[in-house]
Amino acid sequence: MGKTQMVQSKVTGGFWGKIQKKIAGETLYQQYEILNGKKEGLRPEQYSSCILNFEIAAGKKDETYKGYVYSDSELAKWMEAAAYSLRNEPDERLEKMMDDLVGLISDAQMEDGYVNTYFQVLRPQSRLKHFAFSCELYNMGHLMEAAVAYYEATGKRRFLDVMCRTGDLLCRLMEQEGYCHVYDGHPEIELGLCRLFQATGERRYLILAKHFIDERGEQPCFFLTEELLGDNDEGANDKWFGADHHLAHMPVRQQEKADGHAVKAVYLYSAVAELVKEGQDEDGTLERAMLRVWKNMTEKRMYVTGAIGQQGYGERFTTDYDLPSDRGYLESCASIGICFWAKRLLALYQDPRYADVMERALYNSVLAGWSLDGRGYFYTNTLHYKRGVTDYREDCKHMENGRQRWFRCACCPPNIMRLITDIQNYALTVVRDTIFFQLYMQGQWKIRTGETIVTVTTNTDYPFDGVVRIHLSTERYPAKARIALRIPEWCKIYGISVDGKRSRNLNISKHGYVILDVELLQDRTIILDMEMEARYVFVNEKVWDCAGKAALVRGPIVYCLEAFDQEEGGLDGIRFSLNSGITIIEGEGILEGAKLLETQGDRIKSSLEGKLYADKPAEAEKCRIRAIPYYTWQNRGETDMDVWLPYRE
Amino acid sequence: MGKTQMVQSKVTGGFWGKIQKKIAGETLYQQYEILNGKKEGLRPEQYSSCILNFEIAAGKKDETYKGYVYSDSELAKWMEAAAYSLRNEPDERLEKMMDDLVGLISDAQMEDGYVNTYFQVLRPQSRLKHFAFSCELYNMGHLMEAAVAYYEATGKRRFLDVMCRTGDLLCRLMEQEGYCHVYDGHPEIELGLCRLFQATGERRYLILAKHFIDERGEQPCFFLTEELLGDNDEGANDKWFGADHHLAHMPVRQQEKADGHAVKAVYLYSAVAELVKEGQDEDGTLERAMLRVWKNMTEKRMYVTGAIGQQGYGERFTTDYDLPSDRGYLESCASIGICFWAKRLLALYQDPRYADVMERALYNSVLAGWSLDGRGYFYTNTLHYKRGVTDYREDCKHMENGRQRWFRCACCPPNIMRLITDIQNYALTVVRDTIFFQLYMQGQWKIRTGETIVTVTTNTDYPFDGVVRIHLSTERYPAKARIALRIPEWCKIYGISVDGKRSRNLNISKHGYVILDVELLQDRTIILDMEMEARYVFVNEKVWDCAGKAALVRGPIVYCLEAFDQEEGGLDGIRFSLNSGITIIEGEGILEGAKLLETQGDRIKSSLEGKLYADKPAEAEKCRIRAIPYYTWQNRGETDMDVWLPYRE
Repeated sequence: MGKTQMVQSKVTGGFWGKIQKKIAGETLYQQYEILNGKKEGLRPEQYSSCILNFEIAAGKKDETYKGYVYSDSELAKWMEAAAYSLRNEPDERLEKMMDDLVGLISDAQMEDGYVNTYFQVLRPQSRLKHFAFSCELYNMGHLMEAAVAYYEATGKRRFLDVMCRTGDLLCRLMEQEGYCHVYDGHPEIELGLCRLFQATGERRYLILAKHFIDERGEQPCFFLTEELLGDNDEGANDKWFGADHHLAHMPVRQQEKADGHAVKAVYLYSAVAELVKEGQDEDGTLERAMLRVWKNMTEKRMYVTGAIGQQGYGERFTTDYDLPSDRGYLESCASIGICFWAKRLLALYQDPRYADVMERALYNSVLAGWSLDGRGYFYTNTLHYKRGVTDYREDCKHMENGRQRWFRCACCPPNIMRLITDIQNYALTVVRDTIFFQLYMQGQWKIRTGETIVTVTTNTDYPFDGVVRIHLSTERYPAKARIALRIPEWCKIYGISVDGKRSRNLNISKHGYVILDVELLQDRTIILDMEMEARYVFVNEKVWDCAGKAALVRGPIVYCLEAFDQEEGGLDGIRFSLNSGITIIEGEGILEGAKLLETQGDRIKSSLEGKLYADKPAEAEKCRIRAIPYYTWQNRGETDMDVWLPYRE
Repeated sequence: MGKTQMVQSKVTGGFWGKIQKKIAGETLYQQYEILNGKKEGLRPEQYSSCILNFEIAAGKKDETYKGYVYSDSELAKWMEAAAYSLRNEPDERLEKMMDDLVGLISDAQMEDGYVNTYFQVLRPQSRLKHFAFSCELYNMGHLMEAAVAYYEATGKRRFLDVMCRTGDLLCRLMEQEGYCHVYDGHPEIELGLCRLFQATGERRYLILAKHFIDERGEQPCFFLTEELLGDNDEGANDKWFGADHHLAHMPVRQQEKADGHAVKAVYLYSAVAELVKEGQDEDGTLERAMLRVWKNMTEKRMYVTGAIGQQGYGERFTTDYDLPSDRGYLESCASIGICFWAKRLLALYQDPRYADVMERALYNSVLAGWSLDGRGYFYTNTLHYKRGVTDYREDCKHMENGRQRWFRCACCPPNIMRLITDIQNYALTVVRDTIFFQLYMQGQWKIRTGETIVTVTTNTDYPFDGVVRIHLSTERYPAKARIALRIPEWCKIYGISVDGKRSRNLNISKHGYVILDVELLQDRTIILDMEMEARYVFVNEKVWDCAGKAALVRGPIVYCLEAFDQEEGGLDGIRFSLNSGITIIEGEGILEGAKLLETQGDRIKSSLEGKLYADKPAEAEKCRIRAIPYYTWQNRGETDMDVWLPYRE
């Protein structure tokens, strides 16, 4: 067989089909309006000037820059999402909006290829002088990713050429005395450069990406030699937070743990994975560091929802097993970054454990960041919410009271879009002659294998149902296809049939995929039936916050309790009874399509008559417990919420 | 019978006798050395210049002021403690040190009666211009309390006269335009003025105290019209924290809840209690506010250890039932202030519930602030300690890693001394013809009642034993004494005998004291035998942090677990089994004299093989649990500690 590769992919319906349709038909337009200065329905501190800033930089408007130093990246992420959406489903109006924006960015770009509206408009004299918090290269990296995505979606080169000029500027600059040790405090340029290389074949971009990773963390940290931008309306920070906040406390190749700012960490290591894949890790030290950090993050510093970043101060990782449910930062972007990283790990190593983590983050912490009506967002994703407490607790002040239409720093809303509009490319990994199924969703993928093209079509109600129908066809019979099916960590019982015949003596790969070598004499239908039972999950006893508690899960979905779904008393004193059966019920209203869980637990009766402490355990009485998917919380108003509850066996 | 009043009181041995002896013989001298600039054994940031600052102000030294704005109060608290100690036990050397200090303060005092070394030395031009954070009157208030204590202990008037001049300055000043609405951000001057009034009979001091309370919280808050001192080495704060931080968000008479800075709140309400006692509350609104705040604090915002101040940021109360074990501020001074306030409430109301709260604070949160070797202190008193976490968590950064020899802000160490050196005056309340026993300790009290003096002598090993022998004698027989014995909240079974005869049909007062009318035809011995069993205490189910957990208590003592007393595994996954018996064992080494508890609990086995989450509850195995009194924690090195544990019934 010759080289096997993906030639086309799309979502055709089901869970993600609905969401991609909503994004294409509504959300992208809604977000564009806001990025273009729309005010209706927003509080003044939520107004965005992202597009206006480019108009000012291009000399088309004479106004003052508004927004933070990283505002350019918000438009860039939106453009990347729009590009994927156009690839999925043509839309003349959207494409026209994109072409206009590309023209605007091109007009804003300086002679030498530099483009960054904050410095061009507000601080031209400070250009390329502040790397710790300026997000200057970070913004450029996002624009590069968007440019590549738009080129791949439409074949139009203009945006790509614009960003190549920027890439070339950086290549020239970094060879100069005084610049050869800099890198951006917020990783992202590395990812942009890798994609620029993959789209153009120009190795200098790859080499520059490697240069930034090699320089990162060399001591003494060069950030200490530069003057901080200063805390100001543009959001640059006058707190240094320490070199580890920037993943610059030691060379990347030596790093052992998931440290520092959570989003910076996962963006950095996603780029590291690219370098490893592109053969830029001669001695394997980058690969080993990446795998050490992944292991530490997933085994000691990750929430059950796939959220990371245990502390609001510094938006960062803290230490092993410190996983407070009530005040973690747990930024949506950080869990999105886990998906970026995991996707690249799956391309490197076909190991289903990376897909388990990706799925956990995707269906829980990522989706929770976007409201079901499509118009509201969470920036942070707590596992415990008590009404009113956030008004008092400084360590919870990063939490929003209620979903927000937009943010002064709006990194998350367009980031969610660029992940979901491309989600079908997280589903399958094609390596050599094998088609690995990593995420199950309804879609169609065309894969060139040998002399022909195999079309893989799936049908499923995943993540709420465990049955996946996989239809295989080809242009030219006979053909062969090697299929590797991931059996998720959560799945204990499953069955597989091919054309109705139950497969026995399954061939299981070293990492646990079920390998099927399919002779395509005609179309074939594979059915994977994963038993998806509701069950409880428990935490490692070293995690003080929720040791002795349990959480409800079903398939990849983590559940939570909202107070107004419970009987009188809300969440106070409520506990699981592990031996009660769990029944599955259909969500209604805004929860329609989601499966809810009901079980009988018990509740400590308020027997203390208003006293704070008592000398006997309060009696418990039986009560009904209703749980909803965590990602659907606070879509019906504001109420107390918990993921972890104490339990009785 | 005529008026009954206390004429003499002292501790004669037992639990408090040992501690008072240590204070008199060692601690007061150790603290003096530090206040006088001793450097040995201290880190530079712990050096104190309290006495040097007075020498500079008095023109005896030509150096620069060091320390915070409230440094004067640290010396004042030490002097108050030294005065009580001299009253308890004469000490020529200590008295000489006191007289020298009084001379120094007198020399430092300005012509008009003003004394405050920070403003005299560093900012003469800013004198009496910054009231929010200057602690200017706060320092004066502490000096007044010390002056009264020294006068009462020795009969020497000089210190008292010095501070009366300061009081007179304030009386004149506050009548002036522009000053008539000011008050100090940190309450204390009110208490100092009340004691000045009680010692001198000069009502103007009482009236001024009432004036400050009346002005406090009048809106708009006058603090907003003054410029903040600014954050600087002197520790004044550039954060405003909001009017409620200063208990200035509404008039005191309207306050409903325990809000703001915890120490400020309890000092304020201790002064309010004085005003009520002195008849300065015509319409009863001060009294009602005080009782509302007490109720809210004790029923919704107080830890099981009697600690208060749920948050480090603002060192303040947050909201009802928000009682995190792992990051409360829980300042030693705040629990000391609870004792000050409760003592005054007992003088007003003779309700044993106030003594229950006082006892809870005293034997747990207050004592925990001072190490058993007498040389180390805690500023904050957490209920959960996990090694290493405080190095990472911003919301725990107020916690010390290990006991400290001194603090840059050393409000707590001398504050503990002035409480303990006077502890015998918290034991009995003499009201009209009744002698109320509030705290049980070994001591002797002489009470004038009618024509004679009754001597009350007690013998007990309280708080570790529940038997109290009360010997009553008088100068002139026959006589009568009405004794009211408090039955603590924790005591379920008790017996009382008089001269060996078991008393039956006890006369119980409305609030629950056992009333004994004793005919003193000769000496009498009353024995109160309180059954002191070890038991578990449980929290109101509204407290998310420890709902479903239990804590071990015995008598007034709350217990905790330190990791190195447990079997392998430390505190990870360890749980109480409520049905296992609890045995009492003798403490050894530095814990000698304390009773420890042992029971059998169970421990979740680390069955997750390093995984963070698992789909079955980890199995538990039996394990021995050893608990030590909370106040003795971290006296044998640094290790993990917990008060609340999950439990099995």
